[in-house]
Amino acid sequence: MMMSSFMPVRLFWGRNCLKESTYPFNQLGRKALIVTGRHSADISGALNDIQTVLKNSGISYVHFNQVTENPLVKTVQDAADLCMEENCDFIVGIGGGSPVDAAKAVAVAVFNKMKARDVYDVRRIQGALPLVAVPLTSGTGTEATPFSVLTNEENGKKAGFGHDSMFPRVSFCDPAYTRTVPPIVTRDTGLDALSHLLEGVFSAKRNMTLYPLIRQGVLDIMQWLEYAMEDGNNLEARSRLMMASLWGGMVIAQTGTTLQHAIGYPLTVRYGVSHGRANGLVLSAIYRLYFPAVKNALHQVFGSDASSLGDRLDDWLASFELTESLSISREDIPDMAREVMEARNMANNPLSVNQSDIEDLYRIIC
Amino acid sequence: MMMSSFMPVRLFWGRNCLKESTYPFNQLGRKALIVTGRHSADISGALNDIQTVLKNSGISYVHFNQVTENPLVKTVQDAADLCMEENCDFIVGIGGGSPVDAAKAVAVAVFNKMKARDVYDVRRIQGALPLVAVPLTSGTGTEATPFSVLTNEENGKKAGFGHDSMFPRVSFCDPAYTRTVPPIVTRDTGLDALSHLLEGVFSAKRNMTLYPLIRQGVLDIMQWLEYAMEDGNNLEARSRLMMASLWGGMVIAQTGTTLQHAIGYPLTVRYGVSHGRANGLVLSAIYRLYFPAVKNALHQVFGSDASSLGDRLDDWLASFELTESLSISREDIPDMAREVMEARNMANNPLSVNQSDIEDLYRIIC
Repeated sequence: MMMSSFMPVRLFWGRNCLKESTYPFNQLGRKALIVTGRHSADISGALNDIQTVLKNSGISYVHFNQVTENPLVKTVQDAADLCMEENCDFIVGIGGGSPVDAAKAVAVAVFNKMKARDVYDVRRIQGALPLVAVPLTSGTGTEATPFSVLTNEENGKKAGFGHDSMFPRVSFCDPAYTRTVPPIVTRDTGLDALSHLLEGVFSAKRNMTLYPLIRQGVLDIMQWLEYAMEDGNNLEARSRLMMASLWGGMVIAQTGTTLQHAIGYPLTVRYGVSHGRANGLVLSAIYRLYFPAVKNALHQVFGSDASSLGDRLDDWLASFELTESLSISREDIPDMAREVMEARNMANNPLSVNQSDIEDLYRIIC
Repeated sequence: MMMSSFMPVRLFWGRNCLKESTYPFNQLGRKALIVTGRHSADISGALNDIQTVLKNSGISYVHFNQVTENPLVKTVQDAADLCMEENCDFIVGIGGGSPVDAAKAVAVAVFNKMKARDVYDVRRIQGALPLVAVPLTSGTGTEATPFSVLTNEENGKKAGFGHDSMFPRVSFCDPAYTRTVPPIVTRDTGLDALSHLLEGVFSAKRNMTLYPLIRQGVLDIMQWLEYAMEDGNNLEARSRLMMASLWGGMVIAQTGTTLQHAIGYPLTVRYGVSHGRANGLVLSAIYRLYFPAVKNALHQVFGSDASSLGDRLDDWLASFELTESLSISREDIPDMAREVMEARNMANNPLSVNQSDIEDLYRIIC
């Protein structure tokens, strides 16, 4: 099997890795646009750290703090407008996936003089402004991917796009920034990271050079997620989860995501189910659907543990009571399944999946 | 602990990954210098594959086939002279480490208009010509590192140097190219890769994000090396070794090597002991020397197997009879130890090592 990989991000990892960084930020330009959500960049301490580091490097900055969960195309346009007005040379994205994804889209829109709604037309992308990424959750792995997932407020659809120029130039992963993440967000983002790792095995573009990272990441999340939920200040747990999330990003950067991800998007857009929870809801069902097609690959990754992993996942996921107070209307299923059939990620499934298969998957959680 | 990593090589992996490549070679330039040893590029089939691919891309090339094992500075100068005479835009290094290392040095010398003997002065390096790497052994991992190791024929010293611009732009790893590698070379290069992986734990710059690759690579080499020695056409074994070697390169690209490597260089230069065999000869002794300093890290990598790994390594290495017909003069030990004390790699040792420690290590094999 032929495989390819490319992950040109300069990664810094560990406690105070941003605060004490000697990275030459002034190589990136003289003025930065800092893109964040409303609060977490501040609460985590990351915003203060980057502002200090930029000031010490003689770099000025403006701060855009309007990014919401599931970032909107129009928010990207607002940030891109600010970036151009202020003549910023590079972007700093700080946050739990959404602000970093928005920052990537801004970097593309400004560099290519495109409207935010046109960034999906990746053939037009010739490059992007340099991007610094600072993750504040252990979930998306966006610090190691060339992907951005946006929601288009005009048609209500959530979808991803990607281009090699969208890899962050440099990412700073400090597990201490995630100490203030609440238990439910810790759970949902952890399930997102777990999905990425498993999709690295499921994907038709699976890549054996990444298997050891997948194995260790899955084991670590299943071992440490509950500790981080119980005590946000458990830095050992926070570190394990942030590393697993990074590995998840490194994996999907090469393999892409699958139906597993696509099936969650309508639940998020229509019912406000968080992205990670949506992934967690269908994870077991997807595992069973794919199992016959990826049995050998699972064995290569997990060895003799592969055969019992499905049952262990079932039990472990059940403990999180993800379906609690979930109310999905069965009437919506055909429409949602149709939307999934059109998703870009569908190309990576390890077996042929049709509309009726997807409807069956939704029925499990309705 | 703060860690950083950067590995911007575009990697292609698997059977026929070069021959069937759709990589846009013409982005690299219009004329290539192909750097190889005398025979292996031809015998392996890699030379024919790259020539076909270049021709199909409308790229012309000249072929320099004078690189020997432990490439000499003067050979690099000859290749650089040819590169400049022929106005080549990029370099293709094909071989078992030495030609690729020589190709890296050529890429640096020509780009920076430096003499080959000056490339060690890395402060003068501003960039390098683009490099394509095609490994023909499973050992050096040079396809994933920014390092080159040359031997200076004027002072008889072997030493490495490195710069971010020396990462290959793209590497093609096809395990089938290693089918014709003889058993002893398979053994010695495998031991080199094993050293790289273990030095990723020993190094003061050890990096936890790489631990799963180290673990799997070490286990795979210890499981598969003898199969590849017994039957060169065992492609499963060849694949496992080539991947472990790639991981070893990815690891030392971040962590650097240690005394383990430095101690082998004088054995190679003075006694013609192959690089990998030299590493293998001292591997157990180094493991025991470092063990107290890296016990926790070994446990993080190998779990409960860490405590028995030293004994398993001893037994396994003994089976290769590496000391057979080896004759090192005890009189040379002080000189060799002094040389090691000056090596760049010494900075990465996990504990303080003095001249007398190194002399003790040499005495074990004399």
